[in-house]
Amino acid sequence: MQQETSSKILHWEDVTVGETVTFGRTLVSRVEIVAYATAFDPQPFHLDEEAAKNSMIGQLCASGWHTCAMFMRMLADEVLNAAAGLGSPGLDEVKWLKPVVPGDTLTGRYTCTSKRALKSRPGVGVCQMLFEMLNQNGEVVMTWDAAQLLGMREREHAP
Amino acid sequence: MQQETSSKILHWEDVTVGETVTFGRTLVSRVEIVAYATAFDPQPFHLDEEAAKNSMIGQLCASGWHTCAMFMRMLADEVLNAAAGLGSPGLDEVKWLKPVVPGDTLTGRYTCTSKRALKSRPGVGVCQMLFEMLNQNGEVVMTWDAAQLLGMREREHAP
Repeated sequence: MQQETSSKILHWEDVTVGETVTFGRTLVSRVEIVAYATAFDPQPFHLDEEAAKNSMIGQLCASGWHTCAMFMRMLADEVLNAAAGLGSPGLDEVKWLKPVVPGDTLTGRYTCTSKRALKSRPGVGVCQMLFEMLNQNGEVVMTWDAAQLLGMREREHAP
Repeated sequence: MQQETSSKILHWEDVTVGETVTFGRTLVSRVEIVAYATAFDPQPFHLDEEAAKNSMIGQLCASGWHTCAMFMRMLADEVLNAAAGLGSPGLDEVKWLKPVVPGDTLTGRYTCTSKRALKSRPGVGVCQMLFEMLNQNGEVVMTWDAAQLLGMREREHAP
């Protein structure tokens, strides 16, 4: 899958605390909003414009889980599949701050807020990350506060 | 969409703090794991058995976001679409505790840990919920600590 050489792959050592990295770009379509909601979150305000008019948002908007999924796709394509990514044990917080609606263009960024080596797994480190998704107006539509496991570069060179 | 009469619909008043409600049942297939990961989380350990052998989990497992999506589908079908559900502002915590693998049968439960009326929106209440997903061995594979907005019954009868 990964064609990059090891030196180009993002390892735990390569992440700088406090640095913000931008990535990705995705256009949100009505068809995809309705398809995701039909499969995984069939609440009326994600499926149908008329039903959405009477909802708190007042218009058809993407499932929060679809927003997470779109962000994850950008993160995998643009960051993790060029990284020594080892998954995540979970999220400390997810906030859906603004509705995501058809026609939005979404981008991502992450900022490492702290990092440490995992005592339980030699060669693995964890980065606490603030992930943010923005729309075309520069508004933050979603944040994740999450731990990302990354392999260490030095481990690969250990005897 | 909702065929139930108002009296059968779950409103904010109907949720009892401390009570646990079980719901849903879904069988996890390899095809669905790979399809979701291909669309939204194309990391090697969600796509390919051989690549997964070298991962921390050691076998092909569902994306955490797919697990969230399967849970959301059960929650929508079995709870929210028979409730005065008004969405959620976010999650306070998501934990992926056990791998979800092909052949698993997953069920859900929720426990309201606290509830309050929203001052900013008359007729709307928020329930803080512990959502849990279990596998066929009774192991909790995922938890969400999340706020769920629900409409109030009394609002509908207000003049």
